[in-house]
Amino acid sequence: MTTTDRTISREIQLAARPQGAPKDSDFALIERELGQPGSGEVLVRNLYLTVDPYMRGRMNDVKSYTPPFALNETMTGGAVGEVVASGVDTLKPGDLVLHDQGWRTHAVLKATSARKVDARPGVSPSAYLGILGMPGQTAYAGLLEVAAMKPGDVVFVSGAAGAVGSAVGQIARLKGAGRVIGSAGSADKVAHLTGKLGFDAAFNYKDGPVMAQLREAAPDGIDVYFDNVGGDHLEAALAAFKVFGRAALCGAISQYNATSAPSAPRNLALAIGKQLTLKGFIVGTYNSVFPQFVQEVGGWLASGELHYDETVVEGIENMPRAFMGMLSGENTGKMVVKL
Amino acid sequence: MTTTDRTISREIQLAARPQGAPKDSDFALIERELGQPGSGEVLVRNLYLTVDPYMRGRMNDVKSYTPPFALNETMTGGAVGEVVASGVDTLKPGDLVLHDQGWRTHAVLKATSARKVDARPGVSPSAYLGILGMPGQTAYAGLLEVAAMKPGDVVFVSGAAGAVGSAVGQIARLKGAGRVIGSAGSADKVAHLTGKLGFDAAFNYKDGPVMAQLREAAPDGIDVYFDNVGGDHLEAALAAFKVFGRAALCGAISQYNATSAPSAPRNLALAIGKQLTLKGFIVGTYNSVFPQFVQEVGGWLASGELHYDETVVEGIENMPRAFMGMLSGENTGKMVVKL
Repeated sequence: MTTTDRTISREIQLAARPQGAPKDSDFALIERELGQPGSGEVLVRNLYLTVDPYMRGRMNDVKSYTPPFALNETMTGGAVGEVVASGVDTLKPGDLVLHDQGWRTHAVLKATSARKVDARPGVSPSAYLGILGMPGQTAYAGLLEVAAMKPGDVVFVSGAAGAVGSAVGQIARLKGAGRVIGSAGSADKVAHLTGKLGFDAAFNYKDGPVMAQLREAAPDGIDVYFDNVGGDHLEAALAAFKVFGRAALCGAISQYNATSAPSAPRNLALAIGKQLTLKGFIVGTYNSVFPQFVQEVGGWLASGELHYDETVVEGIENMPRAFMGMLSGENTGKMVVKL
Repeated sequence: MTTTDRTISREIQLAARPQGAPKDSDFALIERELGQPGSGEVLVRNLYLTVDPYMRGRMNDVKSYTPPFALNETMTGGAVGEVVASGVDTLKPGDLVLHDQGWRTHAVLKATSARKVDARPGVSPSAYLGILGMPGQTAYAGLLEVAAMKPGDVVFVSGAAGAVGSAVGQIARLKGAGRVIGSAGSADKVAHLTGKLGFDAAFNYKDGPVMAQLREAAPDGIDVYFDNVGGDHLEAALAAFKVFGRAALCGAISQYNATSAPSAPRNLALAIGKQLTLKGFIVGTYNSVFPQFVQEVGGWLASGELHYDETVVEGIENMPRAFMGMLSGENTGKMVVKL
């Protein structure tokens, strides 16, 4: 494809704004011809693309911390690729780069918008979309900065088998949490949490009320809740909190496809007497932790103390399905698309 | 009453746990004979008694940050009284003391449980139950410590005509808030807020949806919300918050009489993208601010920069009615019972 001056990029556009759960017809696969990179630009062949929960919000026409995707334009998102042609001195063909022109097979972009990353022995480049990238940093900053986890704390994380949740639980364990509890949506995931990932307890939220299952898993209460889910999970955490408990509000995946307002949590007034702190955050606010995060988490990865899972879907044409599957919990660990 | 060895105290007991809003038959007025104070004790004739929203929670048989009141025992709560007989050197007849043996006309208590306070010229002793006492300290600590108000912030307070709320709004103004907005439950109270109390804007929450009224009063959003009410007020604040907004969760008076779980707020997930902090607190955690609080607020009272309202009900026999009236918003400023 790169031996001529023309490159064909296959790309996923938003064809319609999803109502509730996204469906195939909300997406369109198109082809586009790219020219050679100009001065200051690079042409990148993407190797891995990410699908993340926050993207669901961008599919609505609602102002949020990221602007909405435009209809009939190619969406954006994290991608790791290989430079195939370069108009700058700082990047050369073969270099591995992290950038935000995802949802497509190829991209011409400004070199300043691409971050060169190292190919690590034994680590897939896709790790830069997960444990060594935005989801990993989200887990690290949310647990240690936002929720201010201390050694000995009882930590509960929802969506615990997901990209962020599996990192949260393991970082909590490695940082000396007194007890780590996770919730997930299948028996296999629960077994994985208490098996390979080393959680102290885990439960399947589909097996019964979250509040009762959490009470059983944490009979003495919890100090920290890392919320990926919202709704009845948050309500259960509010009930289980000890005095001075802290919640890092990271996501509300239970509500992303909702077309009517959720009713939970109905017990927020408990926050008064228990003197709880609930704090919403987005990872970009905590970029100052990045060097410390990469060093610490990279070390745990290298030593094998931290286990990293991926669910890999192949082919750009399957990316909408990967996205929908991630929203409905088909993944264990980080969901990525391999090209 | 104090010329003999026997003193008759008239006292209010909890006769039944209220279901929903309290009613007359939930309370009983009894008489009890008190002896002379022993060594280390004082006999106090109460001058003013306080009724506060948190007491409603203590009437339920539920563990909270304060233990529940016992049935068929005299309730407790803040009181200011005059020492009439003393078994210690540190307190003498005529001294003014603040203590927690309220809901009664007289009390024998340990001298160490009574705090001697100064009679201030032009200031009623009842101020120690309000602006110079627990409600004032709650306002001061909640606004400045918990919500970390900064000069220029747009501040919204609910229950703004109440004992805590009227202090919050005025302290915000005196500390340089950019705009102070209050909600209350009658046209008279609203006029009082924007009149004597110097709020920039106020609205009657009974006139229409809180969210729409708040949006009109704060078209550019709010930075700080001091929550005395919960429910739809908190939901409206979540919608109005700017990025990095902060809520001090102090009370949820809209829910105190509720017999079923409230549904609001349904939009807590907004806390993620806006990176909001919601923090529940109780005043006792912030006792370290007390000296600074008394100095600063006492100064504003003396200079007339801070206006202080009381609703005074006379007679111990009317105390249950005062309590019920306070819960339904009949008071402007601090509700006290004068004996």
